[in-house]
Amino acid sequence: MSENIPAVQQFETLLQGNHVAPDSLARMLQELAYQDYGLFFTNLSKVPKDLLAEVILALPLSLFKEAVSMLPHKKLADVISYLESDKATDFIQRLERVEPQVREAIYPLLHPKQQEQISRLSQYRSDEAGAYMQTELLWATTGEHIAEIKEKLKVFKKHKAEMPLIKLFVTDKEGHLVATVHFSDLLLFEDEKTLAEVIDALPSHKSLSVRDHTLITEVTKLFREFDLAMVAVVDSENRLQGCIVFDDIYDLIFAEEEAQAFKMSGTKQEAEEESLLSAQRHRLKWIFINLGAILIAASVVNFFRETIEQLVALAVLMPVIAALGGNVGNQAVTVTVRRLALGETSWQYAKEILSKEIYIGVINGVIIGLIVGTVAYFWFQIPMLGVVIGLAIIINLSIAGLLGSLLPLTFKHFDIDPAIASPLLLTTATDAIGFFVFLGLAKIMLF
Amino acid sequence: MSENIPAVQQFETLLQGNHVAPDSLARMLQELAYQDYGLFFTNLSKVPKDLLAEVILALPLSLFKEAVSMLPHKKLADVISYLESDKATDFIQRLERVEPQVREAIYPLLHPKQQEQISRLSQYRSDEAGAYMQTELLWATTGEHIAEIKEKLKVFKKHKAEMPLIKLFVTDKEGHLVATVHFSDLLLFEDEKTLAEVIDALPSHKSLSVRDHTLITEVTKLFREFDLAMVAVVDSENRLQGCIVFDDIYDLIFAEEEAQAFKMSGTKQEAEEESLLSAQRHRLKWIFINLGAILIAASVVNFFRETIEQLVALAVLMPVIAALGGNVGNQAVTVTVRRLALGETSWQYAKEILSKEIYIGVINGVIIGLIVGTVAYFWFQIPMLGVVIGLAIIINLSIAGLLGSLLPLTFKHFDIDPAIASPLLLTTATDAIGFFVFLGLAKIMLF
Repeated sequence: MSENIPAVQQFETLLQGNHVAPDSLARMLQELAYQDYGLFFTNLSKVPKDLLAEVILALPLSLFKEAVSMLPHKKLADVISYLESDKATDFIQRLERVEPQVREAIYPLLHPKQQEQISRLSQYRSDEAGAYMQTELLWATTGEHIAEIKEKLKVFKKHKAEMPLIKLFVTDKEGHLVATVHFSDLLLFEDEKTLAEVIDALPSHKSLSVRDHTLITEVTKLFREFDLAMVAVVDSENRLQGCIVFDDIYDLIFAEEEAQAFKMSGTKQEAEEESLLSAQRHRLKWIFINLGAILIAASVVNFFRETIEQLVALAVLMPVIAALGGNVGNQAVTVTVRRLALGETSWQYAKEILSKEIYIGVINGVIIGLIVGTVAYFWFQIPMLGVVIGLAIIINLSIAGLLGSLLPLTFKHFDIDPAIASPLLLTTATDAIGFFVFLGLAKIMLF
Repeated sequence: MSENIPAVQQFETLLQGNHVAPDSLARMLQELAYQDYGLFFTNLSKVPKDLLAEVILALPLSLFKEAVSMLPHKKLADVISYLESDKATDFIQRLERVEPQVREAIYPLLHPKQQEQISRLSQYRSDEAGAYMQTELLWATTGEHIAEIKEKLKVFKKHKAEMPLIKLFVTDKEGHLVATVHFSDLLLFEDEKTLAEVIDALPSHKSLSVRDHTLITEVTKLFREFDLAMVAVVDSENRLQGCIVFDDIYDLIFAEEEAQAFKMSGTKQEAEEESLLSAQRHRLKWIFINLGAILIAASVVNFFRETIEQLVALAVLMPVIAALGGNVGNQAVTVTVRRLALGETSWQYAKEILSKEIYIGVINGVIIGLIVGTVAYFWFQIPMLGVVIGLAIIINLSIAGLLGSLLPLTFKHFDIDPAIASPLLLTTATDAIGFFVFLGLAKIMLF
């Protein structure tokens, strides 16, 4: 029966392929779970055991929970043993969160060496480089000969076939990082040379390293700026602790960007993935926060009740003011948040951003103001109403440009993430100010 | 005098450092340009010539134009010669766009080999893998011995010191890709072995390759899914054309994400970078498109003018309806657009997204509706008004959840980018529907 289901066929084709990406398998399983939990479980059991833990780790949190609850403890401990240290730590921490009893039961079943790695990596906060490093790496001391390295390499390749090998880390006898050497460099030296000799012969052997407590966002920046493939992670005394590799960086860049997109709308990826309930609650929190601001905007309108009573056309045009202010303000917010994400913060830069956004707000305000003013004139046949809405749009869009850049800049100045719900707050601010300007002008100029 | 300016000092410190990232230098120069064009030019001239072209390429388009206009043609051709083929092509294409005469003048001054590379790479569309590949790469045929490879490697390292060396591409005599071999693998074989023997001895030597006409977004997905460091690019007959390397992928992932964020707000990165005028025009275009929709929302209000005349409190509560609908709808849009970006498109998946968003919309609608209904009751002392606004919010937020997911899903179904201005269109749609529901309910229930 299951042969008729295209998703199952696709899943099996993926499994038979030469290159199996755990992410793709996880995504197919997720699709199957939407159709039928039974299909999810039967196909999960088809995944080879050396990939299984990685596939489970790539599932959304709710399915992760299902998968780990289904597997016998011994099997679970077995499949975790195939994970690299950073992923094993991630797996155990996630287990701690969703199934603490399972975590308690399987932890003692792990190899003592893996336990030791996990407990070491667990000490790092989730925003520190240490939390993302692999502790399995090929390293050697300056006294070793090329011939010895070749032997080490053979052993390493046998046990860690999946690990990317780009550079060899070289330390002194106490484990302090001395250099990193490309394998293509080693190829050019004779077996009897020591690493110290190799390093001396190479024009530039110095390598960038990062501290284990460095923020991971700084590390991803470093990878992008210096086109790194791999970087050593050292402790405060420059002792080699592990390394961070390009493949983690792909996911980190993607995750950082994704987190920002979510934040801007008052949502949160972890909450969305955890469960329907947590997604709903996290979103509600931001709407609550914004609700206060919305009621202020409503109070502004309330203040002008008599004016609206005199001319209801004003109420008809209010949504135009609000929507345009929100549009223009959010364009400014998006552009400013992205520019701030690139790291510029000087006063000169802020001045440049502000003047750009105000300029665009004024120009587009004048163009749109003239158009809407004309439309309103023909619609309601009240010349002065056209002038009032036109003026109000010019003023409101100029303020929207100002606020759209000032809001993220101010957040950044006080070290608050400028992406957090900026568009939500901005929309309400331009609503309140826009209504005040529009209804205020109407009160003065129309009656 | 310039010693007093911190940005100049920073710039000079960067230049003296061991590792100079062209991106950082370009960013510092940009800061200097905001302060003073003179500072920009004097510091640009301090950049070493082997980095200069890359730094200029990393500048925003307006400063790129300034920089290329300032440099003598011979110098410009000279610094371009230090670029890898993909970047050289990018440079010439950008020059074509902003200074066609300069492009005409310097192109003949380039090395014939570089001209040939550029004209080959220029044939690819900017969304194809071929446009992002480097044609400089180390390759060898199956008949070559390890000793020969070592000689090739020495020459390559001398001339292309900056190129990352991770894998050796192996082809047959006609240039068809046969395998890719890690340098760490080569280290374990004797000088007299041929590559054919090496390949036979390795457990798994098959490698992923991509077609030159494959979409670059597919390639970045491949890098992420399979944790690739480097991939060969082949033509329709599997002949090796070039390779794409991890460092390009960092920038591509970042650029794809950035483009999406911009698109969602109706802005465009290229337009923002090109000039103030192009930024302002591109933003205006989207506001124009939205303006039509906004006027429809205003017409809905106009339809209920008499109802508002009877009770102006309705006008006071209208902004609450609009802002809440926009907030909830945009949360749904953001989450849905991100999920669609991950590639799921099946009907099962769409159903799952829709039901999730409607569920959250209903729950949060009920909670917020009850709160606002109570507030409105105490504020205006009209019990039925509380009921009307409460009910309207419940209905509107449910619809916002539905629309917030349906809109991107529909775009995706018709192969339109779901990110394009979805939030703009959504906000206006929830405005119009929200006003219709709220004022319609008021008309029926209040009078």
